[in-house]
Amino acid sequence: MAGVPDLDPAVSRRLRFDDSGLVAAVVQQHDTGEVLMLGWMDAEAVRRTLTEGRVTFWSRSRQEYWRKGDTSGHVQFVQSVAVDCDGDALLVRVDQVGAACHTGDRTCFDAGALEVVVGEARR
Amino acid sequence: MAGVPDLDPAVSRRLRFDDSGLVAAVVQQHDTGEVLMLGWMDAEAVRRTLTEGRVTFWSRSRQEYWRKGDTSGHVQFVQSVAVDCDGDALLVRVDQVGAACHTGDRTCFDAGALEVVVGEARR
Repeated sequence: MAGVPDLDPAVSRRLRFDDSGLVAAVVQQHDTGEVLMLGWMDAEAVRRTLTEGRVTFWSRSRQEYWRKGDTSGHVQFVQSVAVDCDGDALLVRVDQVGAACHTGDRTCFDAGALEVVVGEARR
Repeated sequence: MAGVPDLDPAVSRRLRFDDSGLVAAVVQQHDTGEVLMLGWMDAEAVRRTLTEGRVTFWSRSRQEYWRKGDTSGHVQFVQSVAVDCDGDALLVRVDQVGAACHTGDRTCFDAGALEVVVGEARR
């Protein structure tokens, strides 16, 4: 689109988008360390997230951009962004206002505990 | 394969695998909250992770199962697993021995900081 800058090539070169043109974005509360949610970003969502102070995702189900908080007020203010060693995931540290989950839970994982066998080192 | 149990249907029903049959797995150090890495799991990798005490991933590039630590010794012992609200991501809390990243860094995001505009609420 005319007038919209592309993602900085220096950043783009470090990312490895999947066949759908997306990378996974892990969103973490910057001070408590809570993992709040996981979302998806295309190059334009990454550009907006890096430059606008708020997190923008690409919705795979709705095929559109969305910003957490535009309807709920539960805004995510960007504190830092890091790309992983193979370029297919981002860690986005934020200051999350209120609930991160659309269910009203603080995180999208709060209601999802599965039964596990806990591992431990053989001592 | 004969003799290998399927993933518990009660768990499988809560997961929404993508077109490649995968969910994203965020791996977090259970006590410090560090986000260590992001990997991918198919149903069998989820089953192994829930039942074997160690984290098993599916490698998209090598098209095979792998367990962190089998060659490096940097084992991930499972502490808990939770599925997110829309079933396409897992949060796997672990006790990580040594470095989580194949580069030797503690996390796969340590070397990846990107320049950002930090967001803040208008006060």
